[in-house]
Amino acid sequence: MHLFYQSQLPEIKSLDQDESKHCVKVLRRQAGDEINIIDGKGTFYKAKITESHPKKCEFEIIETTLEKTPVFKRHLAIAPTKNMDKMEWLVEKATEMGIDEISFFQSFHSERKVIKIDRLEKKVISAMKQSLKAQKPILNEIISYTKFLESVQSENKLIAYVDFENKVHMKNELNTQQDTLILIGPEGDFTPEEVDLAISKGFKKVSLGNSRLRTETAALAAVHLMNLAME
Amino acid sequence: MHLFYQSQLPEIKSLDQDESKHCVKVLRRQAGDEINIIDGKGTFYKAKITESHPKKCEFEIIETTLEKTPVFKRHLAIAPTKNMDKMEWLVEKATEMGIDEISFFQSFHSERKVIKIDRLEKKVISAMKQSLKAQKPILNEIISYTKFLESVQSENKLIAYVDFENKVHMKNELNTQQDTLILIGPEGDFTPEEVDLAISKGFKKVSLGNSRLRTETAALAAVHLMNLAME
Repeated sequence: MHLFYQSQLPEIKSLDQDESKHCVKVLRRQAGDEINIIDGKGTFYKAKITESHPKKCEFEIIETTLEKTPVFKRHLAIAPTKNMDKMEWLVEKATEMGIDEISFFQSFHSERKVIKIDRLEKKVISAMKQSLKAQKPILNEIISYTKFLESVQSENKLIAYVDFENKVHMKNELNTQQDTLILIGPEGDFTPEEVDLAISKGFKKVSLGNSRLRTETAALAAVHLMNLAME
Repeated sequence: MHLFYQSQLPEIKSLDQDESKHCVKVLRRQAGDEINIIDGKGTFYKAKITESHPKKCEFEIIETTLEKTPVFKRHLAIAPTKNMDKMEWLVEKATEMGIDEISFFQSFHSERKVIKIDRLEKKVISAMKQSLKAQKPILNEIISYTKFLESVQSENKLIAYVDFENKVHMKNELNTQQDTLILIGPEGDFTPEEVDLAISKGFKKVSLGNSRLRTETAALAAVHLMNLAME
């Protein structure tokens, strides 16, 4: 099934230029054909094309279906890798698996201070369409680690950092139905001071297992765990 | 910690040309310096450089440590995606998380019939060094789905294919300590006949959750589940 995206539904009942071109020129849909559209806010629309214009394809709504909302909100916060491809890959895969919010922070060992949110948004929309999801994850602009910790709220706050004396796997901290936030550090990891700061803000240290994972792999493993807790 | 790779240890006590160059020219290690080497067969070596030649860096072994062997063998078999980048990504991430064997098969909806194993081997070795593992996963050349099913052996044989009437999550089929094999179908999925054939060979149908995942994402989720079952 092909999904089109129109974030201003139900007010605007036409596809934007790129989507119209894809619909009319590439997929050759005509007036009278049914198409499926998502609004990124949790609703699937079944619609009928009324005007197959290649720059502004108009439609009327036939049916709306609400996406099932997750049992708890899944929030990933990460110190972005130097290589942006890895972050693009991560937001794509996290969207496929299921994520509600992705934040970026700059910590002591961070190698990247700037994030192109627009590019990541495109990856997210494409992944959302591919995996048949109607709710677009929120992507937040990068801020400092300290500011992030001060501003963020979540019922279940976790930080991926192995406490060798008291190792707790993240999967054992997801038994509840509480909104969950997991912090993933940069390639050089969190500093002990950064970990202490998180602890003072109510975060719990968790392990992602015995393997040494790269930043983006650790992040995806954490996203997978949050989704597994809902199954 | 930097790891070097020499698959012919303990017989050959020198690094190959590429590794020697990296060790001597890039990292500027000298005679008397200690280095860490893996053999891809499960042993970590601590060694001391005896001759820091940039094309053949020689060393003597100081200490050997055996890697902990997994509780059960983790075997992934997959119909490769058209885009080889995704398979390179997958073998890298699977190696990081932990995998013992990766097989490739060609099924009805497969879009790719050829695999460059050499390129994948390089990705695997690099990921193994990065994630501090000493055991190199086995990569098998691509064969037909039918031949694969006839030749393969595993105690716990699973196929990722959702049986909507009797949905069983893969995580619930991993409670034992049996060697496990999971089959991941191509982008167009398995045909019902292919699923029936697997069932007749003793495979069980399992789900990877409610999200529609791309082939490579499904494969990585399955690898993650096999590793979680060991934690």
